[in-house]
Amino acid sequence: MGEKLPTNRLSEEKFNVFWGLPVLASDAISSVAYAVDEILWVLVPSIGLISYYWAPKIAIAIILLLLVLTISYRQIVSAYPNGGGAYIVAKDNLKVKYGLIVGASLSVDYILTVAVSISAGTAAVTSAIPALYPHRIAIAIFFIALMTIGNLRGVSDSSKFFSIPTYAFLVTILSLLIAGIIKSIGGTAVPIPPMVSDPAVSFGTQAISLFLLLRAFSSGCAAVTGVEAICDAVPNFKEPAVKNAKLAYVLLTIFVIITFGGITYLATVFHPVPNSQQTVIAQLAASIFGRGLMFYIIQATTTVILAMAANTAFAGFPILLSIIARDGYVPRQFAMRGHRLGFSNGILLLSLAAGMLVIIFQSDTHLLIPLYAIGVFTSFTLAQAGIFLKWFRTKPRGWVYKAFINGLGTIITFITVIVIAVTKFLSGAWVVLLIIPLLVIVMMKIRNHYTMIAKRLDVPNDRIERLKLSPKPMPYVIIPVQSLNVMVIKTLRYAKSLSNEVEVFNVETYEGEADKLRSKWAKLKTDVPLVIKQSAYRDIVGPLTEYIESNEHASRPGDVITVLLPQFVVAKPWEMALHNNTSLFIARALLNYRNIVVSLVPFQIEEKSELYKDIDLEIE
Amino acid sequence: MGEKLPTNRLSEEKFNVFWGLPVLASDAISSVAYAVDEILWVLVPSIGLISYYWAPKIAIAIILLLLVLTISYRQIVSAYPNGGGAYIVAKDNLKVKYGLIVGASLSVDYILTVAVSISAGTAAVTSAIPALYPHRIAIAIFFIALMTIGNLRGVSDSSKFFSIPTYAFLVTILSLLIAGIIKSIGGTAVPIPPMVSDPAVSFGTQAISLFLLLRAFSSGCAAVTGVEAICDAVPNFKEPAVKNAKLAYVLLTIFVIITFGGITYLATVFHPVPNSQQTVIAQLAASIFGRGLMFYIIQATTTVILAMAANTAFAGFPILLSIIARDGYVPRQFAMRGHRLGFSNGILLLSLAAGMLVIIFQSDTHLLIPLYAIGVFTSFTLAQAGIFLKWFRTKPRGWVYKAFINGLGTIITFITVIVIAVTKFLSGAWVVLLIIPLLVIVMMKIRNHYTMIAKRLDVPNDRIERLKLSPKPMPYVIIPVQSLNVMVIKTLRYAKSLSNEVEVFNVETYEGEADKLRSKWAKLKTDVPLVIKQSAYRDIVGPLTEYIESNEHASRPGDVITVLLPQFVVAKPWEMALHNNTSLFIARALLNYRNIVVSLVPFQIEEKSELYKDIDLEIE
Repeated sequence: MGEKLPTNRLSEEKFNVFWGLPVLASDAISSVAYAVDEILWVLVPSIGLISYYWAPKIAIAIILLLLVLTISYRQIVSAYPNGGGAYIVAKDNLKVKYGLIVGASLSVDYILTVAVSISAGTAAVTSAIPALYPHRIAIAIFFIALMTIGNLRGVSDSSKFFSIPTYAFLVTILSLLIAGIIKSIGGTAVPIPPMVSDPAVSFGTQAISLFLLLRAFSSGCAAVTGVEAICDAVPNFKEPAVKNAKLAYVLLTIFVIITFGGITYLATVFHPVPNSQQTVIAQLAASIFGRGLMFYIIQATTTVILAMAANTAFAGFPILLSIIARDGYVPRQFAMRGHRLGFSNGILLLSLAAGMLVIIFQSDTHLLIPLYAIGVFTSFTLAQAGIFLKWFRTKPRGWVYKAFINGLGTIITFITVIVIAVTKFLSGAWVVLLIIPLLVIVMMKIRNHYTMIAKRLDVPNDRIERLKLSPKPMPYVIIPVQSLNVMVIKTLRYAKSLSNEVEVFNVETYEGEADKLRSKWAKLKTDVPLVIKQSAYRDIVGPLTEYIESNEHASRPGDVITVLLPQFVVAKPWEMALHNNTSLFIARALLNYRNIVVSLVPFQIEEKSELYKDIDLEIE
Repeated sequence: MGEKLPTNRLSEEKFNVFWGLPVLASDAISSVAYAVDEILWVLVPSIGLISYYWAPKIAIAIILLLLVLTISYRQIVSAYPNGGGAYIVAKDNLKVKYGLIVGASLSVDYILTVAVSISAGTAAVTSAIPALYPHRIAIAIFFIALMTIGNLRGVSDSSKFFSIPTYAFLVTILSLLIAGIIKSIGGTAVPIPPMVSDPAVSFGTQAISLFLLLRAFSSGCAAVTGVEAICDAVPNFKEPAVKNAKLAYVLLTIFVIITFGGITYLATVFHPVPNSQQTVIAQLAASIFGRGLMFYIIQATTTVILAMAANTAFAGFPILLSIIARDGYVPRQFAMRGHRLGFSNGILLLSLAAGMLVIIFQSDTHLLIPLYAIGVFTSFTLAQAGIFLKWFRTKPRGWVYKAFINGLGTIITFITVIVIAVTKFLSGAWVVLLIIPLLVIVMMKIRNHYTMIAKRLDVPNDRIERLKLSPKPMPYVIIPVQSLNVMVIKTLRYAKSLSNEVEVFNVETYEGEADKLRSKWAKLKTDVPLVIKQSAYRDIVGPLTEYIESNEHASRPGDVITVLLPQFVVAKPWEMALHNNTSLFIARALLNYRNIVVSLVPFQIEEKSELYKDIDLEIE
């Protein structure tokens, strides 16, 4: 994965609003590629044509929600100018437990962001080239693999790299919007005929119910996920960072309103029927521009911005995990940067989990959506509740207004959580509602474990000063061998430099197996005894530890037995694979026994001649 | 995979002819389930209805071939009463290289036996339940997985376990035959209408060519694979073993003639058209018995006997590999029995390779067949050539007749190899013709490697007697640490029992990281120096080895540096997974450095209190 990089190469690029916005907003902006589809998926099969009357009303409700979020989050920006992220905000201002709920929710959501964005991106590809539809899972997995490799190597975090596709997407969606409006004004807009190939979707004739509208609202909420990204990254803006981040929020909101509102408007004119083969954007583009160059450009920019949205999760999830890992709530391995300075373990976990979701849900955005958004809104709620309490506690100037805004935000996002949980419960939200508390419990268990270990290992300062490091008695050394060879002789000589009490140990699985060893040993001029034990199993650890336990030397409490394992080393890895390399396994197994120190004595296979030179010198 | 078993539990069941035959013959007998299909696959699409005139002639040629093989192999049984297998026969009597060719051929063939038999077994299932056809790959993989688990655990090798399904298959095929003959005599036999669902197969109108007939013959040769099994297992028969094994050969031949000949005869009457959805046996059964109980019984017994045929490969391949491994031509790991006394690595290799073939070839027997049989006939040829030379060399009583028989066998099987290679070259045989020599080269490379290692490690007896094991000087000890804790203190005390020259080593990746360690160290009453090195990389092996190399102590040639790695141990595996366990990685990496002995000093996390008791005693 490329040569390793020193720690000081961690980049510190600061961006202005124009170049920075796309990096942080691709997740939110790209949601338009599936959010309108999802609203129609709920409505059309149930209430038919009237859907196109209700869809814009639901979109307006979602846009109002977005406005509340924007205003609330602009205040969080002021409160956490160093960037915080919901996890830190909740942990700082509420109880740790709420921080963990946020951590779990966001983790689930990052994974879903990848699965949903990649599935939607694949849908954009297969809408353009229908022949690829049967291969959609393979395509999605290919995208995820590409991103995993890219992020393990460390992708360019240059803001320009990200900005051009985002602005290209905005421009193409805007042209679609303008051309669509012109067509509708000119009276040449005709409803798109439903596709015959997807019999599952047909115009429903049910009565409208509040539950149905709330379900559609829940589905559409996918459009506002990703709003938190700017708030997490305030210090990445050029000075004045806070002001710039707040400006970015305004622009983000405008962009989402234009794209999401615009596509919803076009849907009311062109009546696209949701189906798994053609996305709403693809249907609109085909109807407005025909299946020509513009159609393919729109599909291409949609795919790219969705891939970028997935990539924001690859940037965000490993960092979130590393922060939680530093607090000790997830395994420490997630806190370490790899050779290429990325958090490799987090990247791998993300791609495995997202890949599994893509396979289980057949890369179908529509099936994944019910799991999405709950996590995001849970973290929205807790972050705002935290800020609300912060205003209340610290009471800065104008705190009543600030508290009112974030209190309102808390209430509205909390209501949204309830609405999503209830209306989407059976279609998948229950999974997330089960997993989040489970993750929280696991995280607390992990932290307890680390605390226990730290306590056990700690030596308090006052005790250090009283410690006297008198040496233990000379160690007792055992060398397990299979035959008498150069490697064993090297090990024997080393053993004699450690101790006068050395034994060589061999396991005989059938009568006579060790005869050759016995006779060779007899020829060797040494006072080191050869101990041979019979055993029916082809295993050395069992008989060896049994012998040690039965050994009078081991019975002196506190004594350390040293087991020396001769291990030869060959230069090439494929050569190493030809050997059993049992030493490392034995070493690992023996570690479980108190007071057995395991030493690996390496023998480079090339060193024989030198060793002989050494030995020859000492021939009597 | 179940509790481990002692070596003396290796079973030694001896069987008589009636119970032993099915164990050894299921591979050969089951071939009838696809051999007739394969002959028709070649003929029908090319020459249409005339196929049913030529098919029995080809079958007769194959049966004649089988007779030659039977007579030849009965002689090998006499020559190798202890069982040999083609690998040993070829290695003993020809050059080692030919033994390796046989080893490689048989290995390829065992893998193909599993892939072909399981694919054919799956075809029997999907012929009975056509709805399962789209899931055939999953079914085949499931069968392979089941067999892998069964064989890793150690399946029952009770001959009765195998015999009942084999005899059940024979009985059902016999009833099919009898009912079919009655129907044909009664004049109620009508040709089966070709299935419309498989447009690829239609009655061809080409002229008959010798090449085409030879191709059909090559395909049909799959029917005689598995004939060598009895010869490999002579000592498993009850005494008189040689006589019993020879009788088994006669019975095997009769069974194959009845089933293979019988099904071919029925094909000439009922004109089944080969296709991938319905096997020939299924078509015949449906036409003769209707799709009733008998139809399903026939499909079930066919599936079971094919599964048993695959299982013979699971028994044979790991043993073959272990024999070759003992000679040093394949990695030594294949020579070791696992805890359950099976050769686990061989079993896993077989199931992985066969699984891959099933996936690549979409579990389609028809696509796999061109790869099959070449390996078998190569080993037939070389085994017989070996025996031929043996007669020639040893000249026992009646050797001219014996040599004639095996010479004839050699020539005929060799011609068959050529025919298969030529007629099937483009449809897949080239793969096998490429892989076998490649495998032989790899095997020779592996053997060279082992020979080299053995030479390097060997201490000749005359040298042993002159060796004087004077100890090396006291070792120089380095302890890499991250902080000062109880584990480090335990390691320090152990270090002081080994040597007076001890150093503690730490890597600081940023300024000030080690300050806490420095101040704690200052409080400790010890003469052991703390060495801190700066490094930009989060890696300990690099700075440590650099330090050792720059160290004056290491420059004394022949000196051994001892690196002590404190490693704490927690009881549960999931707890262990929460820690980096870097010690084992560091140990592995340091092994590559000449003269660095790596010791793991374990610290059971429960032992702290005891250690403290120990330490407290020593407070000044």
